[in-house]
Order: sequence, then C-alpha cells, then structure tokens
Amino acid sequence: MANKSDNLTAVLYGIEDLRLEQRPIPVPKDDEVLLEMDVVGICGSDVHYLVKGRIGDFIVKKPMVIGHEASGVVSKVGSKVKHLQVGDRVAIEPGYGCRTCEYCKGGSYNLCAEMIFCATPPYDGNLTRYFAHPADFCYKLPDHVTMEEGALLEPLSVGVHACRRANVGLGSQVLILGAGPIGLVTLIVAKAMGAGKVLVTDLLQNRLDVAKELGADETLAIPKDATEAELVKIIHERMGGAPDKTIDCSGAESTARLMILATKSGGVGVMVGMGAPEVKLPLVNALAREVDIRGVFRYCNDYPVALSLVASGKVNVKRLITHHFNIEDTAKAFHTTRHGVDGAIKVMIHVQPKDKNNPK
Amino acid sequence: MANKSDNLTAVLYGIEDLRLEQRPIPVPKDDEVLLEMDVVGICGSDVHYLVKGRIGDFIVKKPMVIGHEASGVVSKVGSKVKHLQVGDRVAIEPGYGCRTCEYCKGGSYNLCAEMIFCATPPYDGNLTRYFAHPADFCYKLPDHVTMEEGALLEPLSVGVHACRRANVGLGSQVLILGAGPIGLVTLIVAKAMGAGKVLVTDLLQNRLDVAKELGADETLAIPKDATEAELVKIIHERMGGAPDKTIDCSGAESTARLMILATKSGGVGVMVGMGAPEVKLPLVNALAREVDIRGVFRYCNDYPVALSLVASGKVNVKRLITHHFNIEDTAKAFHTTRHGVDGAIKVMIHVQPKDKNNPK
Amino acid sequence: MANKSDNLTAVLYGIEDLRLEQRPIPVPKDDEVLLEMDVVGICGSDVHYLVKGRIGDFIVKKPMVIGHEASGVVSKVGSKVKHLQVGDRVAIEPGYGCRTCEYCKGGSYNLCAEMIFCATPPYDGNLTRYFAHPADFCYKLPDHVTMEEGALLEPLSVGVHACRRANVGLGSQVLILGAGPIGLVTLIVAKAMGAGKVLVTDLLQNRLDVAKELGADETLAIPKDATEAELVKIIHERMGGAPDKTIDCSGAESTARLMILATKSGGVGVMVGMGAPEVKLPLVNALAREVDIRGVFRYCNDYPVALSLVASGKVNVKRLITHHFNIEDTAKAFHTTRHGVDGAIKVMIHVQPKDKNNPK
Amino acid sequence: MANKSDNLTAVLYGIEDLRLEQRPIPVPKDDEVLLEMDVVGICGSDVHYLVKGRIGDFIVKKPMVIGHEASGVVSKVGSKVKHLQVGDRVAIEPGYGCRTCEYCKGGSYNLCAEMIFCATPPYDGNLTRYFAHPADFCYKLPDHVTMEEGALLEPLSVGVHACRRANVGLGSQVLILGAGPIGLVTLIVAKAMGAGKVLVTDLLQNRLDVAKELGADETLAIPKDATEAELVKIIHERMGGAPDKTIDCSGAESTARLMILATKSGGVGVMVGMGAPEVKLPLVNALAREVDIRGVFRYCNDYPVALSLVASGKVNVKRLITHHFNIEDTAKAFHTTRHGVDGAIKVMIHVQPKDKNNPK
Repeated sequence: MANKSDNLTAVLYGIEDLRLEQRPIPVPKDDEVLLEMDVVGICGSDVHYLVKGRIGDFIVKKPMVIGHEASGVVSKVGSKVKHLQVGDRVAIEPGYGCRTCEYCKGGSYNLCAEMIFCATPPYDGNLTRYFAHPADFCYKLPDHVTMEEGALLEPLSVGVHACRRANVGLGSQVLILGAGPIGLVTLIVAKAMGAGKVLVTDLLQNRLDVAKELGADETLAIPKDATEAELVKIIHERMGGAPDKTIDCSGAESTARLMILATKSGGVGVMVGMGAPEVKLPLVNALAREVDIRGVFRYCNDYPVALSLVASGKVNVKRLITHHFNIEDTAKAFHTTRHGVDGAIKVMIHVQPKDKNNPK
Repeated sequence: MANKSDNLTAVLYGIEDLRLEQRPIPVPKDDEVLLEMDVVGICGSDVHYLVKGRIGDFIVKKPMVIGHEASGVVSKVGSKVKHLQVGDRVAIEPGYGCRTCEYCKGGSYNLCAEMIFCATPPYDGNLTRYFAHPADFCYKLPDHVTMEEGALLEPLSVGVHACRRANVGLGSQVLILGAGPIGLVTLIVAKAMGAGKVLVTDLLQNRLDVAKELGADETLAIPKDATEAELVKIIHERMGGAPDKTIDCSGAESTARLMILATKSGGVGVMVGMGAPEVKLPLVNALAREVDIRGVFRYCNDYPVALSLVASGKVNVKRLITHHFNIEDTAKAFHTTRHGVDGAIKVMIHVQPKDKNNPK
Repeated sequence: MANKSDNLTAVLYGIEDLRLEQRPIPVPKDDEVLLEMDVVGICGSDVHYLVKGRIGDFIVKKPMVIGHEASGVVSKVGSKVKHLQVGDRVAIEPGYGCRTCEYCKGGSYNLCAEMIFCATPPYDGNLTRYFAHPADFCYKLPDHVTMEEGALLEPLSVGVHACRRANVGLGSQVLILGAGPIGLVTLIVAKAMGAGKVLVTDLLQNRLDVAKELGADETLAIPKDATEAELVKIIHERMGGAPDKTIDCSGAESTARLMILATKSGGVGVMVGMGAPEVKLPLVNALAREVDIRGVFRYCNDYPVALSLVASGKVNVKRLITHHFNIEDTAKAFHTTRHGVDGAIKVMIHVQPKDKNNPK
Repeated sequence: MANKSDNLTAVLYGIEDLRLEQRPIPVPKDDEVLLEMDVVGICGSDVHYLVKGRIGDFIVKKPMVIGHEASGVVSKVGSKVKHLQVGDRVAIEPGYGCRTCEYCKGGSYNLCAEMIFCATPPYDGNLTRYFAHPADFCYKLPDHVTMEEGALLEPLSVGVHACRRANVGLGSQVLILGAGPIGLVTLIVAKAMGAGKVLVTDLLQNRLDVAKELGADETLAIPKDATEAELVKIIHERMGGAPDKTIDCSGAESTARLMILATKSGGVGVMVGMGAPEVKLPLVNALAREVDIRGVFRYCNDYPVALSLVASGKVNVKRLITHHFNIEDTAKAFHTTRHGVDGAIKVMIHVQPKDKNNPK
C-alpha cells in the first residue's frame, strides 16, 4: 500500500508552467471511489494546454491538474458503490455529465453542457497519486489486462466513437487520414469491426510503418507536391475504388478537403481532429454526392466496447506506447511528446512503479 | 384526344437560346408509357441552364428539351406495363437509374452514376406534348388531385427528401433558411411530419408572408447588417432555443455558416441549395458539437410519400403557384421566373388547356 | 395555498382494499421538488393492481400509494434545482432510473433494472396531496395548457413511444388494434407524425366513434365470427393495401396474430398491450416476410415530445376524458374505470378543486 | 472448353424423384451472362423439396432444376454487360427481383413479390452445366478465391444478413442457437464483425467442435432434460451475462423460446431458421423488455460483403465442406446431406472436374 500522505500531483499553472506539488488526498463521495493512480498517458490536448494555455473556449484560468488517459486501483469505496471493491484495477473514463439534461438522458452524455472532464478547464485531471471519481465511470480490468492498456482505453474509445460515427462495418473500405495516436487507434478499431481494405495516410513514414504493423492494408506517405486531384486518384487506385468511409484524424484543412473529395457518393466523412476554426471546403462536392460530414467529440458509452476489444487479446494497442517516465519526470515526458523525440507516439507517465499492478 | 401529329417542344439550344419546335412523337418501350403532357413547372435549374448553359459539370453541349416538374395523361402503354392504363393521370418522377448498380439495388438510386434525368444534360426533359417514360416512375393521381399538384410533387419530393435526411420528427424544432419554392415545400413537409416550432428566414418579406400562410410558426426577415452572432441570438430567441434541425434551402455561404452556428449540439444541418463550389466554414464548431452536415441530391423513393401528402388534402401546395402560361409563351414564363416578376414563386407552363384534365 | 397539514392519500393495501388516509408530507431532496398534486388519471394498470394485486412479477406486498398519470404545482424546490420554481405547473413523468447503468447512460432508461416508478410495487404513486419527485422528471407546462392535459402526457407518451418504435412517418399506413385509451393516444400521435391512412379496430362501436372524432381515417368494428384470413382481407381492402405499421394496443392473442398476418412485408408490428404470458403465433409468417416485432415498455425521453404536441394545440387529447371525480370519491372513480360505466374512457381524479390551476 | 452440346442437368420431378437429364443450353439476354457452372452446394431447402415437394406455399408443380449455391465461369456475355467478360470466374447470387417495385427500389429486393430465385418453384436452379443469369448478380472472384468459396458465398450471405439484421457490432455478446451450416456461417460473420463473446449451442457435439475451430468463444451441448430456466441460467453463466443478440439458426419452437428468454433487455433476437408455422411463445417477456424479434429472408446486398470477407483470407469458410461429389452422383450427394452421413455439414456437387477453375 502506498504512502497515504504523499499525493504528488502535476499541476498546470499556465503557459509553460507545469509544476509538481503536493495536494490533499480527496475524499470520495457516496457514489465515488478513491483511486490510487497507476499510469497516465499524455494526450495532444495536454500538450496544447501547456503550450497555448487554451483549446478554443476552454482556457486555463487557474491552476489545473493535468492528465486524463489513466488507470488506477480502487483504494476506497463510497457508501453507494456496488460493483467495485478495494483492490480492483480500473480504467477511468475521465468525463461525466450532469445526468439530468436531455443529452445525459438521451444517450449522448458527451454533449452535456455541464460535462466535468479531467484536465479540461476548470476541472482537474488525474496525473496525481490519489483521485476520486464516480464509480460508474470506472471499468474493472480483467486480470490479464495491463494498467497501460487500461489507460489506453481513453484514446481507443475515441477510435471506437469515430468508427461508430462513421458506421464502419463488415467490408467497409476505410480511408484514415493521419497516423498519429488517434489515427492508429481508429485503424485498430476499424479492422476489428471487419473493415475490408483500410488505407492510412501520413506525412511521416515511421508512423505509417506502425500503421502497417497494426494492420493497415495499405499506407500512403502523402507526396508534398501532389494536387488534390492527384491525391484522390492515387487513393482510389490504392484502394481499388473510393472509400465508403473516410476518417480524418489530422484536422488540417487539407485533409478535411481530401476527406470530402475522396469519399464515395453516399459515404461518410468523419472528423476527429480539430483544426483551424475556419476552413475552406469544396462543400458542394459533398452535398451533391450526399457524403455526410460528422464530427467526433470524445466518446460516449464507448469504454465498455474498447475494454472488450482489448480484453479479447486480438489487438495490440500497447504497440502505441513508445516511452515510459515516472511522475517525477513529468516535464521530460511532456517534452518527449511535444517534440516527438525518438519517434514518440504515446508517452506514459507512471505514478506507481511500472508493472506494480500488472499481471505477472 | 390531342392532335397526334403535333409535338411542340421547348428545346434549349444554348445560352439564352430556348426554342419551340416540332419533334417526333416517341414510341414507348416495353416498360414505358407514352404520356400526353399536361403541365410543367419551371425550376431554378431550368433557368440556370438557360442563363449559364451549365450547372457544375453538367453542360448543355447539344440541344436539350427543357422541363422536369411535370404531369401528364397516359396515352399508350408498353407491353410489360401492368399498373397503368390509357387515360390514367400521372405525376412523373423525372429521373431513373441503371437498376443494376449498388446504389440502385441499395435504395439510393438518386446517387446512380448512370442516372437519366429529364433536362439534365445530355438527357431531354419533358416540356413537350408527348413524352415516353418508364411506367414505374409514373404515379397515378387520385381523382381529386389536380395535374398542377401532380407536377408539384417534384419540388415537394425534394422537401420530403430534405426532411427525411434531417430526420425531422414529432416535436422537432426546425430552422429553414430561405423561403423560395424549396424552402416552402420543406416547410410544408416539416409541419406535416409533426415538427414543433418552425422558423423560416428570407431576405424578402413577401416570401415570408407565404411561409406564414403555409404554416410557419415564426418568420424572420434577415436584417442585412446583423453579425452572425446576432443572427444566431435572434434565431434562438425567436425559437425559444436552438433548432434541432436546420435546413438550408438557399445555398449561400452565409446561410451554410448560419446553419452550423445556429443548430443545437447533436443536431443536423441539411443543405438543399447548391451554391459556390468553395465555401469558408466554421467547421470546428460543427464537429465539436457533433452537428452533422448532410446534403440533399434530388430525392429517392420520396414521390409516393409526397403524393400521399397531397392526396390527404391537408396541405396547400398549390399556394406556391403564382403564374400560369401556355407552352407557346414559354419564353415569357421563363422571363417571369428568372426575374421574379410580380413576386413569382412557382410558374407553371400548360401543355394542354388549363384544367382540361383536372377534377371538375 | 393548500392546508399544509392535510396530505390525504389513496393507498392500496391489497386486493380490493384501497383506502384514503393521511400520510406525512414528504421533504424534497436536493434534486427534487415538492409538488402540490392537482389531478391524477386512472390507468388500466391501477385497476389491475386493485383487482389482482399484481401485474406479472410486480406484486403488491405492502401498502402502496396508487396513481401515476399526474400533474401538480411546485410548492418547494430542492437546493440544486435550477429550472423550476415555486408555482410552476408541471407534468410529472412518473418513473426514473438509477442514472448510472448502461441503459440510463445509453438513452433507454425505461429498461433500467433499478427503475423507480410510481405505483409499481414497491414504489408509491402520487394520488396524494403532496408528492416529492426529481425535478428533471417534472415538465413545466406552458400557460395555455391545462393540468388535465399535463396528466394526460403520461398515456400520450406511451403513444409517442409506440409510434417511434414503429418508426411511423410521413405517409405511413398504420393499423391500430384496439381503441381504448392507449389505442386512441397512439392514433393521435400517428396522425401528428404524418401517417397517411390510419385504420383503428375495436369490438366496441362507441370507442370507434371517438377514434373517428380524433382523426382515424377508417374504423372497423371487428366482426366476431370472422376468420383471420377474412379479417386480413377486410383490413387490406379498407386500407387500400397492407399497413406498413401495425400497433397492437389490445394485447390479446388474437390481435397479436392479426398484427403479424396483416402487416406488409418489411413492415413493423409493435405491441403495447401486455396480454397472456404465452401466446400461439404464426411466427414463420412474420420471419419470412421480415415483419419486425417490437415491444413497448412505458416510454423514454418521450415526455418533451408529448408536451410539444399538446402545447401546439393541434390535438384534442382532452377528448379522452369522460369522467371527473374528487380524491374523496376515489373508490367511485375506480369503479367507473373498472366497469366502463357510461362509456368511460379516461377517468380523472382531482386532488385540488377542478380548474383551480387551469388557465382561465 | 467444355463440350457445348452437353448440358447435363439435375431436375426435380416431384417427391423423391430427382433425375439427371439433358437440357438445351440457354441463350443469355442482353443483360445476362451464360455461365459454365463449376460447383453447386446442397442446401437444406434442396433436400426439403426432394423429400416434401414443397416449402410452405412454394410447391413443386412441374419439373424444376435444383441447386442455388453455385459458382461458374462466364462463357458468353450479353450485349449490354460491361463489368464481366468471358473467362471470369464468378459467384452467383441466385435470386433477383423485378427491379421496379417499392422493395427493389427501396433497397430490400429480397422482399420483392416477383422474385425469381433458383430452385424455388416455379423457377429453375443451376445444378446444370450451362446457366444464364443477370450479370449484375454475378460477382467476379479474385484470383486467389476458389470456386468452392464462391459457391459458399450463398450461405455466407445468409450469415451476413442475419448479423446485419441483429446489428452485431464491436463487442456484441452473441448467442447462436444451432451449429448447422447457417449457424456456422453466422458465427464466422459475427466474429468478423467484432463480436465479443460468441456462444454456440447445438445438440450434436461434432458440430460444436467445428464451431470451436471456427472461432466460437464458447460452445454448449444442450442438455436434453434441462428446463428453460436452467438453460437460460447456464447460458448467462457461460457468457458472463445475457447476450445482446441471439440468432436462432435452428427454427425449433424450443430455440425460438430460448432466444426470447435468454436475450438481454433492449437486445435483438433474430430468427434465420424457419420452423413450424405455429409456435407458442413467451411473448410478453420479449415485449416488456423490448427485445426485438426479427426474421431473415435470404439476403439483400450482402454478396459483396460476403465476398470481401472471403477474399480477405481471414475466415476459413471452406471448413464447412465435408463432402465432394460429381454431378453424375447427385443422388448420392443428396443422400449424404439428407442423412448427415459421416457428419456431413456442407456437401458440394462438382459440375466440372474438381479444381479445374481453381487457383493453382
């Protein structure tokens, strides 16, 4: 059992000002559990807050604990909690809604205006030793699943949500634009859903190599000087036709445009990456061919599916992890993610000694 | 019975070159009927071809019969036709697919790449005295429905398709941008589907007056100098909240933007109007709130529903008609539509004497 | 303001044992409101509990307050309640889930295994003077809507749920089996959703007369000695073809069978009425024609839609009310419903003086 | 090239009267291809016609060529055929609709009342040397796919349709009742769609062994003397909860009942097997828990998906084949299927020498 007086916590005070400090250990409410945190992955948004102090209208105005891709071990249980007990290893879904609005009751709680989400201002994240969270947003891990896999359920759930929004199914021809962490989890999920051919594009060959390892049928390093028409032609040739579904995991104007132009009539373009607030689009091309455009905001009811996928042992989501750091080296971990040091894809920060809570 | 040697036909030879001329009377194939045309409405696209000679990639390269919003009377029946007989009054769905591609077999024949569609180059339209058409795309009108209503099923089907794409249902809060013919039919359909509050916007007050007559709960004359944020605020105030569904029937960049900004999180924006090929959009706003963007390309399996609606007697689609001309005055009819003479909304061209085939 | 020491309440002690007694006035929790009850409708299930002491596995084992179709006026507000204030007139959705299970989070809280539902054992209903309820399940009534209409949102929501489950839409041909209160609200909703022809059947002509008044296009008094094949033939003739959707609001084996046999291939049969636990069905007929069979359990996210419908003023849901009683005459009110006295359809029990809280 | 004067054909003259005889070689129509047949699988329905002379209302009234699970090589091409050429190896989708009714245009041609389907009276099947068929219902096989796999696309498409009707997706918990050919293809498809745990039941252990080989997570030999409640309990224990989706591939009353009782609230029960015309069901159990009941009639737009699955190389559909015969031994082949000789699952009849058209 860990030292119950130590609650070292990574707190973002503002732009380029991330500090480690002690915080009081929280007391779980009736419907919450107290978690001894194990491992926390760094997400692009964490870096964004560090560098810019904001994402759109979400602005870091007061010190905020960072981190939201996490797993931990239950160390205390609120009085109303039934399905968890002390010692349970859990993945933590980092956001929860008000439970009373039309979105929460209607099955799309990710759109709740009162959402409390780890490390989205003004709410604290969970890169800390002790964290209290609603029990129903903690998912018990089967014995053979690691804590790292538990933490990776967070980005994996984004991939599940993206593929569900795209309605990927058996035989779908899927184009994935971008082979960063989100592009890669989307690839994993699309293949698991029975997609036929999946083509993944990126600018960086090393990322495409990982995509290939993770099951991409085709990869394409985007040639920098190709016109849109040429790119569409290459994509269609490589896929043997136009994709039914295109999932843009990059967020650039160029990929949003390509998504529209490359997708088959009657198909779906889904955008996961969030880019510039204003983009110039060949919209008529989409409309006249009834190519639907859909966004992805986090996930909703997707954690159980992501967990089922990881638990099946059929996917190698751990392949995304390229670096490990201890919480004391949080600054270095952020540096590694931010600058893509050594081909960094997913960087994990260990709050407990590595493998402490993992299956032997 | 009409003179079987007269087949006066309106033929578009090129930009600003619309001629009336005699054409041979067609012979229906086994699965077709020969129709004695009755009345043909003028659509914005007809005018567009007259003025510009093209719409996007569809270019008038050889003389093309104009007209596609039409009704007629069966005067000959192909050998395999079962459900129609000589004398039947029918509405004509103007386009049909190849019947063998994945779209035709999959229930979205409007996306068939081999679509044959009246007055879309290179295919002839039906502003003519005699026209042959596949029987299964001709819908028998009940005795109490007029030929004009039959012709109006064409734009009405666009409204049905738009509302279906938007998933309008009981209690939907619907914002309709544009009160031209398509905006008005969309309004009619949305109310018939049980929409709660419908707000229609336009620049012209006289069109909004018609919208009001046709059941709009609210109308809004867009103030020219209002900012986007102000417009969104006014719309939300007038509707008592954000609309679930916004249907843009205008096609301007400004309305496409407004569609995104005004629609509720998790809602749907549908675009019927086709505007500039490139538009600048606040796309992140849509994505982060999961507001779906969907296009409408004509209609598909919507004629029977449109006919059912008109036949019910509950809607006054005829209110759209502002002008009547004979085929001999086709030039004048186009002039009226093109310049909005006398508040023209929908202009009808009669190939037969008015009311000849109508219920007494 | 009512006498705050009087909390006369109708309590079911067991079979044929319904008593009026004083109960303590409840104290609302943080997220609840205290309601001064106004009017409560009697439902078939209330009578069932009185007569049989159970419905399926729900057994009255201890005294239970009866009543769940209700409206009231807010008289106290919990500390966390934002959208309601004292004096607000509200319709009460009588059941709410645990808010944490997969059903509650997934948009189908009506299937929550921990559902707390008024007057379903072991939970108390609201035929009482004061009742506390979660604020988010109370819907503020617009000024022009009556308290009786508010109470009727409960059965109306069943109709909304049934029509949504059937996917009723514009032009749907709908067969409704049974013209009791549920059949009638289903009729109202189907027409409001744009159904084309609706045929309502029943054994009793007086109920069919009300159906006619409420918008049924056709009604059919089921001839007692007709065979199934004959009934199907009559129905198809009266509707001009097979219905796309059949909604069985009776629950008899005979209507379940008719539902299957009469519905069009590819159509939907929805069952609202709950009948015998075991029924003999021509199941192959449904399977080989892909006629889907779907049940309806109460409603879910349907109250807002039902309220929108009533508020629109387009439907006359009050036409269902045939009798009014004061709470002191609860026994007589139940007798009237149970035996269908004077053609009773919906019987209302007033907890406050009639019209006290209604618009003048 | 085969002998163009030999068109040996298996013709069912009536009950227990299956003859081999010469038939004229057909001439393909404009939109058809002439196929040199390669291999034809025997389906339970073929045997049923041999033994009973009918299936429901489909009665063998005149001699009918048997066979409909088939592949062949294009030997002649109609004048309008574009996507196929002589020498192409194709899988044959055995039924096609009228192409003009609401089902054919609406994306559910399997429900077309005018369906022409091989070896369903009065239409001839394709256990013959030469067969003409609409080109758009012939699917070109990639070079690495065998003719046997092409023939197996027929039952596999039933599995695809069943899983689509059940809405199987990533993480679905699926119960499959029956491990005959249809149960096994359904298993293959469910796993390919990303199902989580799949439990397959049957009475015969040898079939369950094949299910295990093909990817079943769990198998269960139904204990003959278990009560329904006991079976449900065992199933829930083995699956770690109730299945979201149950697919009954047996058609017995007992499995239809089990399907209802075992499925999770809000889940789906799909029935592929067609059994007795009348069954006794615990319908209220399904209704009150909103367990939907859906049938499967053949398939529709499922061949391309089935082909994509086989072409991916990820599934071993050939494992279903237990026996091979030449067309001359058709009687023996039917005997083997009919009596399950030597654990027969799928029996193939070769019209050409085995492997003649297969990849080397």
